[in-house]
Amino acid sequence: MNELIEYIKDDISVTDAIQEKINRISIKKEIQKGDIILSESSLKKQHIFVLNGCLRSFYRMDNGKEVTIQFAIKNWWIGDYITLYTANKSTLSIESLTNSEILFIAKAEMEQLYLDHPEFATFQRKNFEKHIATLQKRILSLLTLTAAEKYNQFITEYSDFVQKIPNYQIASYLGITAESLSRIRKNNKK
Amino acid sequence: MNELIEYIKDDISVTDAIQEKINRISIKKEIQKGDIILSESSLKKQHIFVLNGCLRSFYRMDNGKEVTIQFAIKNWWIGDYITLYTANKSTLSIESLTNSEILFIAKAEMEQLYLDHPEFATFQRKNFEKHIATLQKRILSLLTLTAAEKYNQFITEYSDFVQKIPNYQIASYLGITAESLSRIRKNNKK
Repeated sequence: MNELIEYIKDDISVTDAIQEKINRISIKKEIQKGDIILSESSLKKQHIFVLNGCLRSFYRMDNGKEVTIQFAIKNWWIGDYITLYTANKSTLSIESLTNSEILFIAKAEMEQLYLDHPEFATFQRKNFEKHIATLQKRILSLLTLTAAEKYNQFITEYSDFVQKIPNYQIASYLGITAESLSRIRKNNKK
Repeated sequence: MNELIEYIKDDISVTDAIQEKINRISIKKEIQKGDIILSESSLKKQHIFVLNGCLRSFYRMDNGKEVTIQFAIKNWWIGDYITLYTANKSTLSIESLTNSEILFIAKAEMEQLYLDHPEFATFQRKNFEKHIATLQKRILSLLTLTAAEKYNQFITEYSDFVQKIPNYQIASYLGITAESLSRIRKNNKK
């Protein structure tokens, strides 16, 4: 069974019709560690669902510094939502941090799926609501927490896969320097 | 006509049924400058639609410092999305920066409206998608821009209502100090 169907079947009743449609529109791909799935300046409008492995979306600044916007593991969606939901070119890149398996679903196919299956649209709307809450929480953390508080919150929330992520990428997600992160880790060990 | 119906009618066909329902579930309220619409620790799950005026949501830190999460004017939604979409108590407060008029819609009523009127659910899903793109963009700005770049981006994007907002609140939205903001404004005038 398609793993996306496996994932939604706890929340909505998966009919043969919806199962057939999801199978038809989702394209499974095996990718290697280091592969770039989406490059900056792309106009590709795709939803990406992670079957296994770990991916991240990031922004490359003019000075070459990278800023990490999102990490994603099994059963998470990842995307450049600025490209996906507005008319703009992608500003982000998405890379695979491990060997991974993902599903691509083109935006237009997903739109049709929503229209044909309102129960799936409702399921996704609730995901969007949770995503909005998560992003608001992240903004709150960026504006209020100290570097150490941000790091400790991160390793608690992402305990499942913090091991898979190089420290400089965690630092670039938290908006702190790699040196600051290494100091915090040293203090934590004391 | 209810101003929310006015706002949606360009995108979806407003039948008598949906119009009657929106009128029934939305509660109009006039509020004064300084009024608090939502307090921290509340469990009230409400969507707030601004008819006119200007509101902001903010977080009060233990040291009394305030951090602004969102501003909203005419035809914008505002809310504590952490309370609205998760089981948690509100961490934010929402206050009115001017005399304003707003509509409240209880979360449960909105859910029913989505189920009864899939075209309205689609309209709102697209709003959520745009909201996700906006929040991702804000995180990108917080992580990559200098204080001056953040301020200049803000006054361009919010040119409609930047006059209504005290400088210390703009600073608290951008994550910069009031002193830094005042230096940037002085430099801009040169």
